[in-house]
Order: sequence, then C-alpha cells, then structure tokens
Amino acid sequence: MNCSIISVGTEILFGQIINTNTVYLSQELNQLGMNVYHHFTVGDNKDRLKETLDYALSKSDLIITTGGLGPTQDDLTKETIAQVAGKKLEMHESSYEKIYTYFKKLNRKMNENNIKQAYLPTDSIVLENRCGTAPGFIIEFDEKIVISLPGPPKEMKSMFEFAKDYLKAKSKCTIYSKVLRFFGIGESSLETAIIDLINHQTNPTLATYAKIGEVSLRITAKAENEQKANQMISPVIKEIKNRLEEYIYSYEDEELVQVVAKKLLEKKISVSFAESCTGGLIAAKLTDISGISESLDRSIVTYSNQAKIEELGVNPETLKKYGAVSEETAREMALGLKRVTGSEVCLSVTGIAGPGGGTEEKPVGLVYIGLAYGENIVCNKYNIFGDRNRIRNYTSMLALNMIRKVLEK
Amino acid sequence: MNCSIISVGTEILFGQIINTNTVYLSQELNQLGMNVYHHFTVGDNKDRLKETLDYALSKSDLIITTGGLGPTQDDLTKETIAQVAGKKLEMHESSYEKIYTYFKKLNRKMNENNIKQAYLPTDSIVLENRCGTAPGFIIEFDEKIVISLPGPPKEMKSMFEFAKDYLKAKSKCTIYSKVLRFFGIGESSLETAIIDLINHQTNPTLATYAKIGEVSLRITAKAENEQKANQMISPVIKEIKNRLEEYIYSYEDEELVQVVAKKLLEKKISVSFAESCTGGLIAAKLTDISGISESLDRSIVTYSNQAKIEELGVNPETLKKYGAVSEETAREMALGLKRVTGSEVCLSVTGIAGPGGGTEEKPVGLVYIGLAYGENIVCNKYNIFGDRNRIRNYTSMLALNMIRKVLEK
Repeated sequence: MNCSIISVGTEILFGQIINTNTVYLSQELNQLGMNVYHHFTVGDNKDRLKETLDYALSKSDLIITTGGLGPTQDDLTKETIAQVAGKKLEMHESSYEKIYTYFKKLNRKMNENNIKQAYLPTDSIVLENRCGTAPGFIIEFDEKIVISLPGPPKEMKSMFEFAKDYLKAKSKCTIYSKVLRFFGIGESSLETAIIDLINHQTNPTLATYAKIGEVSLRITAKAENEQKANQMISPVIKEIKNRLEEYIYSYEDEELVQVVAKKLLEKKISVSFAESCTGGLIAAKLTDISGISESLDRSIVTYSNQAKIEELGVNPETLKKYGAVSEETAREMALGLKRVTGSEVCLSVTGIAGPGGGTEEKPVGLVYIGLAYGENIVCNKYNIFGDRNRIRNYTSMLALNMIRKVLEK
Repeated sequence: MNCSIISVGTEILFGQIINTNTVYLSQELNQLGMNVYHHFTVGDNKDRLKETLDYALSKSDLIITTGGLGPTQDDLTKETIAQVAGKKLEMHESSYEKIYTYFKKLNRKMNENNIKQAYLPTDSIVLENRCGTAPGFIIEFDEKIVISLPGPPKEMKSMFEFAKDYLKAKSKCTIYSKVLRFFGIGESSLETAIIDLINHQTNPTLATYAKIGEVSLRITAKAENEQKANQMISPVIKEIKNRLEEYIYSYEDEELVQVVAKKLLEKKISVSFAESCTGGLIAAKLTDISGISESLDRSIVTYSNQAKIEELGVNPETLKKYGAVSEETAREMALGLKRVTGSEVCLSVTGIAGPGGGTEEKPVGLVYIGLAYGENIVCNKYNIFGDRNRIRNYTSMLALNMIRKVLEK
C-alpha cells in the first residue's frame, strides 16, 4: 500500500518545532509493510491543505494527516478532508459526551469551538483520544483511506495504536531489517564492492547510510513473518561478510564505542588514554557508556609539551628532535601512560587539529595514535581531512577502532 | 517570495533520521522574509522526485532541495533538477580538482562515482562545499530559482551561507537579527518574563529557541539597511537586559564554551579539570576551541575512588565518610587539582550520571561541581533530570557557566 503523511501546522513551516510525528509514523508504517513515498507539510491554510490532499490522493492509497484537529479557528483539517471526500460533518454523540464531561470536571466553560471538536465526517471510523479532547477518524472513499490524527505527539501516538489495528488487518506482510556497521571504508567504495547485490536484489533490499567516518548498511526483507524474513536476509549477510569482514564492526546496529566498551568489559581489560589534540574526547565518548568504570579508572589530557614531559615522562629530547606530533612522541606517550596508570590498553593521541599550527611537512589533520597492549606497541599515522571538529571526532573513532582490532585478536 | 523545501532521501521516509535540515532552512528562510508554504520529502527515486519538483515549481518561486548529491547510484537530485530545468550536466573544473586532491591526500582510489560529483547543470552558480566533496548549486530558469544543497547537516549549513548572500541580494529589504543566549532559565519562563514584548512587537519580532540547558532569543527587524534595523533592535535588547541580565551569557549568538574560552584567553588565565562523571567531556568541549592551549595545558579524568586518591590526593577518609559524590569530595578534588596542576581555575565534577548507581539519598542526576579560583573555593550542588547523556552534557554546561561567572567578577 502506497502511503503519504501530511503534517498540518504553520509552526512547522516556521521551523519552530521539529516534526517528530513524521519520524514516528514513518517507522510504524514501514514496519507494517507500507511504502511511505511522500511526506508533506502545509500550514493552517484551507486552500493549500486542499491542494496538498488532492495531490497526495493522486499518488497514494493511504494518507495520514497529523495536526489541525484542535479547537481554534485555524484548525481546518477535518473540514478540508470532509470536503475532499464529499462528506458532511455530523455530531458524534459519544465524543460530545466526553468533551462535555471533561469541561464539567475542570469546571471550565465549554464554548462553540470545543463543541466543534465533536463533529466528524459522516461514515468515519472514530478514533478515541485517550490523552486529549479531539477525536481522530478514519475515512474510506474512492478506494482510498484517510486517517486523521491530532498534532500533539502524545495524543497522536496513543491514537495511532487504534489505527494500527485497522491497518494490520489491511496489510498482509511484515518488514524486517538488519543493520551492519562499517568503519574504514567510504560509502561509495562500500557500494562499489557490493553493487551486484544492491542491483540484483528487490527483496531483501540493501541501502547504505553515511555518518562521520562510518557507514551503515540496512538489509530489509518483506515476508509473512520474522523467521522467513531472517531466512532471506542471512545469506546476504554471509556474502557481505565474505567480501568486507575487515570493515564490519557490528552486525547489530551498534555504535563503535558500544562495541569497544562491550569488549573491554567482557574481557575485563583496563584502558586509559593520553590525549593531546582530542583533549579528552575519547575518554568522554567511552564514559558515555554506563558501567565502563570497570575498565576505565582514570585518563589524562596532556595538551602541552610540558604536560607530556611531567605527566607521562616523555623525553624532552624526543620533543625537541621529532616534535610533539610524531611517531616517537606518540610511542613515548603510550609507554609513559602505561608506567603511570598500569592499564592493559594504553592509547595515546597527538596531532594537529587546526585550523592553525599546520606546516607543509606536518599539515593540519596529521595525527599519530600509539597503542600499548601487553608487550606490544603499535603506532599509526593518519592524514585526516576536514575542520577541527571533524579531525577530532574522526581521530577518536580511529582510536576506538584500533582498540577494537587489538581486542579482537 | 514563495518557497518550498524538498528533502530527498529514502532514510527520511523510513523514519531513520530526523529531518533537522528542514527546521534549519525554514528558520533561515523566514528570517530572510521568505514565505515557506510547503515542505516535501521524497525518496531516492527519480520519477517521484521529478513529479515533486514539477508540483513544487507550480506552487513556488524558490525551491531548496537537500540531499541526493552524494557519490552513489541512488543520488539523483542533480540529474533530476537538470532534466526539469532542461539543462545538461557539465564538468565543473575546480570541483573536480578539489575531489581529485582530496582522494590523492587520502591515498584512496577515486572512482567513477566520485568523479560524478564534479558534474553540475550548465549555467549554475556553484556553491562550494567546505566540509565535504559534493558541491551544491543555484540554477535559475523560467523565473524560478532552485537551490540544491547536500544532505549532511554540517555541509548543508555551511553551504547555505553562500546561498544566503545570493538570496539577500534578491530580497528588497534587509532582515537583520541579533541573538541573545541565556543559561539557567527555561524557555517558558523566559517567554513569560517578556511576553508583553513578544505580543506587542511586529517589527522587530522576538522568537525563542531551546536547546539542552540553554535558550536563544532572536530579535529580528525588517528595515532598509542594517543601521536602521539596529536602531529598532537596540531598545528592545536594553529592556530585556534590564529584566534578565543575570541569565544572558552572550549578545552575539556565541556558544557558552566560546564565551568561556574567550574570557580565559583574554585574561590569560590557566584552567584545568578533575572530571569524574563527565569523564573528559568538559576538557573535550573546551579543547574544541582553537588556541585554547594558552589556557589549558593538562586535565585529568579521575573516574574511580582510587584515581581521586592517587591523582588528586583526596583523603580516603573523606570518600569513606561522605562518598565520592559529595560536596566534601568535590572540594578536595578541586584543591588537589590546584596542588597538582597549579592552574588558576581548577574545576572538579563528581556526580551520578546513571542509569544505575542512584539511591534515595543520592539519586541519579545528583552532581557537585567544585571551583577553586585564587584564594576562593566554591562548591555547587545540582539535581539534574534526564538520561545519562543529558546529565553529562548539562553538567558540562553548568561547569562552564560557573567559570564564566567567576571570570566576570
């Protein structure tokens, strides 16, 4: 079933509120196996709402509207839908009773506007509002369905539960997805590596999404039930794993930092950081995971040369000869951190986050990450593009990924 | 000028991401005096995108698209706009150079898809992408304007700045705004305190916006030129300052951390942190400001009791008697930090970020912040609501605000 969502409200067009209703409804409708092909937002304006309804009806079997069911003058959704569907508005007795009782209980005067809320298009299926006064409704006409819900998210969500039962009865299949997460491969390289799978699959479908430094791949199957969907998805995951395992850090849509924290805690391995250009960001990310105190008991930001010497015992000669941003310094920082904290995994970061401080030899984005683990020490060099914020964030992800890799060995 | 925003991306129709681009662009366009009458979202599907463009063009003078400019096969926005406008795509030399240099620097292979990003519709005004590879563009045809921006919010926002200059030149009167930033007062309290100003003003207008822990107030005047706009805005700011000065931390739309960094650097004051529940977040935020190494040379995360004892010299008896989350511990942490680092401003944080670890006496959200400055030491107690992430973030803002206040004295 092809579906459109129409959000009604001038406040959305002003950018005064974030439209979370659409996010919620999109997720729910996709889960029900509906194809959500359009979102629309229009203001509280009868002509534009009518045009949008007409256009959406020409493209969709099912339309869900949110907003414009309130008691004020600019709430016009119900009237406009009735007009488009060629229906009249009639008083809905039990909704009237409910509104009447509500006002009596509050000892407030019920006015014309409030009574207006009890009127609904003829032949509607009424959706009770458990969190407010305005009822919603479902109306069928010309082989189309329009479901009209209120704008306040709490009212909308609770009312959608009734609409869901109605829609489930109309739908035949389930949608089920798995999300793989990748690090160290760009979105376009990932796509190139599995383009045959993307192009030849219609069920399950594959779609990539990129965030800073990471890419997600969603594999979605339509089937009668979850078990059958899983049977369709599993061989695709197996094939992707064959090709790209080295880049995959989660098969369960987890964040990189969650994966690292889980591994540290499972293996009871202690960790600490000596951060220069990231200035505490790696520790801050890891401590966002609740319970990580079992693995991280302290960490340090050594921003200046003096701090590197005093806190980590970096040799002043090393700093003079190779500079603070060098493999030699990163190694001494990691080893010094190990002496100071005794942690099993000791990671150091030194780099040039910019915008100033870069030279031809050592440009902005040059970063060294040192990692002492057991008897081993490794140091990687990276050239990261972007502004200060991106360089620092991407560095923290590279650092977490280095830890993930040594823990997996 | 009547305006539509079209968001392109199947992930939005799946409800996988919240469409914050539209919120941002709506605010900006309204500020420029544009009438935003429609928002549309379509997936990465050429036919539906074309239909939507056609429909939006029939309703609007200006269309802004976001998304679908990436390197992958399903990025079709550029091609579709070119088709609707009756233009061809041609190679844009300097964009090609930029992408080429980017891949060379990363030592990654540049493939067909990446080169595709350098092609733009003929006669476009090219919008440079300072945060990524895909350029955007402005195209004029049949007395309509289409502006095409990338989907990632950071790239979109930075690129929209160029588009704004273009749109300002098209508009006849100037829209000029000042943004005041508040901390320590909620959005509704702020509104209540100035409701008379909000209701009685049509030019300038006042609008509030809330983020975690802070509220912005935008004062916008329409006038022939900036000077006249300023003359209209100044008395309003003066009146707001009279009422609410204690909560205002910026009259220039700066972030709290920027204000704090500026003051530290101006006054050449050194700072360091002893962070427990924030785990490095305060240091990470401050070091996001370039040049802060003049004030911050080191900082420390003392997550465990043992770390507080060993790194800061907190008395084990204090921890035993009052607990790690107590005023006494926070004070000893700040004083210990002063002994260890010698920084002029030494700030300590200890609290319960949750979700576990709370008790009736010491619930999740209980936070103590200690601040040693010169001969003085203060310690504040807070009860912060929300989840782990919010508690940590709000704590870091409270800490920065405490520093701001002592530096202002």
